Amino acid sequence: GTGADNDLYINQAVVFIEDAIQYRSINHRVDSKSLWLYRWYYSRTCQWILGLTITVILALAFVEKPSSLTITSDVRYRLPAWNPPCGLTESIELLCFLVFAIDVSVKSYLIGWEEFWKNKWLMAYILTLIVSLTDWIVSLSFFCAEDLRIRRILRPFFLLQNSSMMKKTLKSINSTLPEMASVVLLLAVHLSLFTMFAMLLFARTKDGQQDKEWVAYFRNLPDALTSLLVLLTTANNPDVMIPAYSKNRAYSIFFILFTVLGNLFLMNLLTAIIYNQFRGYLLKSVQSSLFRRRLGIRAAFEVLSFLKETPANAQQSYVSAGALLQVLQKAEMDSRCKQAIIRSLKICSCDQLSAAQFQKLFEELDKDAIKQHPPTPEYQSHFMQKMQFVFGHPYFGYLGNIVALANIVSICVVLVMDADKQPSERDDFFLGAINCFFILYYVLEMLLKIIAMGLKRYLSYPSNRFDGLLTVILLVLEIATFAVYGFPHPGWRPEFMGLLSLWDMVRLVNMFIVFRFLRIIPNMKFMALVVTTLLDLVKNLRAFAGILVVVFYAFAITGIMLFKGAVVPLGNTRKKCDFMALFGHFQAEIIYCLLYLLSVNLICRWAKIYFVAWWLISSVIWVNLFIALLLENFIHKWDRRCHREPVSDIEYQRTVELMFRDVLEEPTEEELMEKLHQHPHLQLCR
Amino acid sequence: GTGADNDLYINQAVVFIEDAIQYRSINHRVDSKSLWLYRWYYSRTCQWILGLTITVILALAFVEKPSSLTITSDVRYRLPAWNPPCGLTESIELLCFLVFAIDVSVKSYLIGWEEFWKNKWLMAYILTLIVSLTDWIVSLSFFCAEDLRIRRILRPFFLLQNSSMMKKTLKSINSTLPEMASVVLLLAVHLSLFTMFAMLLFARTKDGQQDKEWVAYFRNLPDALTSLLVLLTTANNPDVMIPAYSKNRAYSIFFILFTVLGNLFLMNLLTAIIYNQFRGYLLKSVQSSLFRRRLGIRAAFEVLSFLKETPANAQQSYVSAGALLQVLQKAEMDSRCKQAIIRSLKICSCDQLSAAQFQKLFEELDKDAIKQHPPTPEYQSHFMQKMQFVFGHPYFGYLGNIVALANIVSICVVLVMDADKQPSERDDFFLGAINCFFILYYVLEMLLKIIAMGLKRYLSYPSNRFDGLLTVILLVLEIATFAVYGFPHPGWRPEFMGLLSLWDMVRLVNMFIVFRFLRIIPNMKFMALVVTTLLDLVKNLRAFAGILVVVFYAFAITGIMLFKGAVVPLGNTRKKCDFMALFGHFQAEIIYCLLYLLSVNLICRWAKIYFVAWWLISSVIWVNLFIALLLENFIHKWDRRCHREPVSDIEYQRTVELMFRDVLEEPTEEELMEKLHQHPHLQLCR
Repeated sequence: GTGADNDLYINQAVVFIEDAIQYRSINHRVDSKSLWLYRWYYSRTCQWILGLTITVILALAFVEKPSSLTITSDVRYRLPAWNPPCGLTESIELLCFLVFAIDVSVKSYLIGWEEFWKNKWLMAYILTLIVSLTDWIVSLSFFCAEDLRIRRILRPFFLLQNSSMMKKTLKSINSTLPEMASVVLLLAVHLSLFTMFAMLLFARTKDGQQDKEWVAYFRNLPDALTSLLVLLTTANNPDVMIPAYSKNRAYSIFFILFTVLGNLFLMNLLTAIIYNQFRGYLLKSVQSSLFRRRLGIRAAFEVLSFLKETPANAQQSYVSAGALLQVLQKAEMDSRCKQAIIRSLKICSCDQLSAAQFQKLFEELDKDAIKQHPPTPEYQSHFMQKMQFVFGHPYFGYLGNIVALANIVSICVVLVMDADKQPSERDDFFLGAINCFFILYYVLEMLLKIIAMGLKRYLSYPSNRFDGLLTVILLVLEIATFAVYGFPHPGWRPEFMGLLSLWDMVRLVNMFIVFRFLRIIPNMKFMALVVTTLLDLVKNLRAFAGILVVVFYAFAITGIMLFKGAVVPLGNTRKKCDFMALFGHFQAEIIYCLLYLLSVNLICRWAKIYFVAWWLISSVIWVNLFIALLLENFIHKWDRRCHREPVSDIEYQRTVELMFRDVLEEPTEEELMEKLHQHPHLQLCR
Repeated sequence: GTGADNDLYINQAVVFIEDAIQYRSINHRVDSKSLWLYRWYYSRTCQWILGLTITVILALAFVEKPSSLTITSDVRYRLPAWNPPCGLTESIELLCFLVFAIDVSVKSYLIGWEEFWKNKWLMAYILTLIVSLTDWIVSLSFFCAEDLRIRRILRPFFLLQNSSMMKKTLKSINSTLPEMASVVLLLAVHLSLFTMFAMLLFARTKDGQQDKEWVAYFRNLPDALTSLLVLLTTANNPDVMIPAYSKNRAYSIFFILFTVLGNLFLMNLLTAIIYNQFRGYLLKSVQSSLFRRRLGIRAAFEVLSFLKETPANAQQSYVSAGALLQVLQKAEMDSRCKQAIIRSLKICSCDQLSAAQFQKLFEELDKDAIKQHPPTPEYQSHFMQKMQFVFGHPYFGYLGNIVALANIVSICVVLVMDADKQPSERDDFFLGAINCFFILYYVLEMLLKIIAMGLKRYLSYPSNRFDGLLTVILLVLEIATFAVYGFPHPGWRPEFMGLLSLWDMVRLVNMFIVFRFLRIIPNMKFMALVVTTLLDLVKNLRAFAGILVVVFYAFAITGIMLFKGAVVPLGNTRKKCDFMALFGHFQAEIIYCLLYLLSVNLICRWAKIYFVAWWLISSVIWVNLFIALLLENFIHKWDRRCHREPVSDIEYQRTVELMFRDVLEEPTEEELMEKLHQHPHLQLCR
């Protein structure tokens, strides 16, 4: 019947609007039941369960057998890790697989059979599930005693396939690979030619005194290759050339040439290539998001125009305001936006909306949310008004900054004075007394500000929230200290009592004070710019970080599987350190447990290859990706800053989309309609 | 008289044309005598003498007293350096000062009194000369025994002021300084906050076992600051966190946070800032060069239009072709260009040239020089023609590459096999025999190619010149080996004879063979692109390299003066290495002699400050400048490559100007005339 038809159209419009809000594709089934399933699948609960499942299956690695999650990383001291009984982690895994199976079948059903065959990600998802399940069965039939567990390496795939951003980023990285491969090939040629040169240059001589360089770094081909590879990471930078350099200064030419060509030129070429590739990446991704949003809204308009209420004038489609209101009531969206749209619908007071009007109504979604701070309280008393003026003035904030700085300086002075004292000689009185004074000032400052601004307005500023929270923590810590140890007095150095010793308590307070000092950031213009760039970057980097996690996870699991049982404490420290330096920075957690095995010669070669791959992927490529994105973000921000002075008092809640708003292109009517007509499940002919 | 006037106009035009060719400013005196002086000053001889003088005065540092130019850098082994008698280097210096004094007076005279007062560089030049001379007199009056020699630090200024490119670059760097300073300030804040945190976190505890971290890295404020600063350079990357990490894994969070914020974010922010600043740098500099060229040509046109021969029609100025021919004969310029201009003048066959026509004639200067290879010889005999076809074919070149690769592989195999052998066990027969065979092939290849292409055509390709030169060197070496040691036979291992031992001889041959392998570069497309980018970069980097030399020189001299006499051989190796790593790469030569002094505690703090400044300037800022230029160059090249496929057979001799030709803006008539009317010495009113 037409009533059911109308309901369907309304529901379709609701879903399309929600797709537009979430930047989702609209290419899914649009019959009533599928729409219900679609809304259920994308409901907060379902997505939360899916996310939890992914987290759980990834976190399993920390409790599974060859894990090393203990407090100390030192093999000599650490206790044996807890070993879960066979079947415990496996049954959790099975549950997770079940959720994934439901996920993949719902997804496949929703996009339809024809689309399914075109979607390689879904196929890979199913394949991964099948392989994992098979591996799981094999594992159980061996009573968890088998060595190789493929499904562990496959786990990060579940994280990958769940994020469209990550899939997009991966595609982008993929298209850069040929050029990156060329540079890596060049690096390999560079390395091998120089290795040959080095082996000819630093050959063994008859005089044992003269060939220190040969003994230490170029004894044979693998050694020479390793030395130069590590030199490429600058980890063994001066050490490797010292013996040769002591013999003859001219040898340094070889090392300088190698470093300049390899490190300065080829490595930066990689940066250039990746930057060149990713220059337009952010813009392109934002542009395609915009297209999805416009498409969703247009689709909603088209289905709403089918409603029977519409007068059947052939030229243009119209949508009644009532139908739109109905859709808006049903759709899940930010309440501020919803209010704004309904308000402008009422202001326009047109009964029939054209496509352009319809689209314009939803532009509210793209707008900055202008954050309005609550007003200050209005006091009657003259005294209170004066107080309000004094303590609401920016200068009072600056005074607070100066006091915080003074506190930092005083802590610094005490630290320098106490540096060489034995813990037993230390007198905690001085530090306790000044901290007590400063914390009192902080509490007073907070209270005065709250009185001047009113609690709501005070809390509406993020810097105040940060400040207030830390002040409260400091106050609590200080009160706890006094409750346990009494008030400070000379020679105030009681023994250990309660949870923490007095000394630890004072240290904790000091750390919070140092941390609180960061409140000066918004007061310094350049610092504020840098920090906002950093925050933007973090937002844009989520997809990259996700991919990094995937790569880390795969590498860690592979490493654990490859080098299991090879962890023998040994003291070949120099080599160890070279290799650690090879990895750069963040990887300490994963690598430290793999380090000792370098002393085991049997698997040393495999370890080297593994580590070089690791270094290339995590340190070189990822760092360059980071630099590329930072350049992109920063240059964009910088240009904007020069163009227009920011209005100081209005805080925008910026999104990536807004950053590019002035360069984005609106999709044309034709593009939208062409795309709509390609929709696999929606018939748009009247 | 008018004849003299006409001569003057012709001479002015000649000088303006020469200015245009050399991209020089035309704002100099234009009377007859000044023109003669100007041409004399910019003649090749004069400029060569000036360059030589600058080189000599800079090179003096290598022979002056606290110099360490010896073969070995090891203080224990090296012989005392040669000590020139007092007065020798000083008299050379005086000569140089004399040349500089002439230089500055000629320059000042040529630009005129009014301009002189506006020119800060010239004033600084004079000031530097005065200070240097005063210092020289003081030095002589102390009989060279005084400690402080200011004039040495001032020397690089003479290099700086002589290059307009370097002055321009310095201006550009100067305008980036405020933003760089902000980032450096941020780095300082970051460092100091984290230092305080570290000192609170890794405090001394009562249990001596527990505070390894404190003992090693955070004993007091300077130590903690140094540890974290060196961590910023990633030189002590894993070492610094190992003790804390062994105690509790959570400590790594501190180090990871520090490294991510400082190294990944703030350091790359510096890259972004510098790249942002230098993005348009090359284009701007090329644009201003173009303006100077057009201005010079226009000025030549204007003065030529004053010649009496010109018909006095008021509307437009004209220049007769005869006058232009006269100017062209007198002007010093590339003969190819001169021929081309005269040729097009004849083709156009117009007697009177308008400004536009005049300008158009000189466009030849901007054009690529299309390099035409001489033709191949035409042989009569059928056999020779066939040979020509076979050995002139690219496949023959590829075969040569394969043979070279085979040679490399064979050397590699022998190196691997011989790696662990004692020098006395080594048998040089195998390597000698295969090298003999390969070198024979190379000679044959060269000869066949010369027959096929003809000597002239063969030599017109740079790759062939490279190849041929190395082949000849290899042949000479091989013949020398056979002459001294006889032909190879099993057990061919004679004792040391002649200049080099047989083993050294073979090594040398092998090195040349490895080097010769680089001939494959033009055959690989991506490699060729990279190499041309590198060469372009080297061209563009000359100014930066000059400034780097200036900075290096000043630092080295300051260092030698500061730390003179503090060179005590000592073994505090770890600290030494940390500091060496702090400097990055190229600076080994200068730094190694300064390293031991770190063990001397008295000047340790000064040394640290000196080294940190050094690291910031040379490693951080210069490397970032390099990256910025590389990005600029490479992205430009890359975009061009995608736009149009290069015509493979025509080799252009590209200049930086040509790279930007499609984006350059031609200056307008009004701009040129306005600039001409501002000329301080040229009256253009008729």
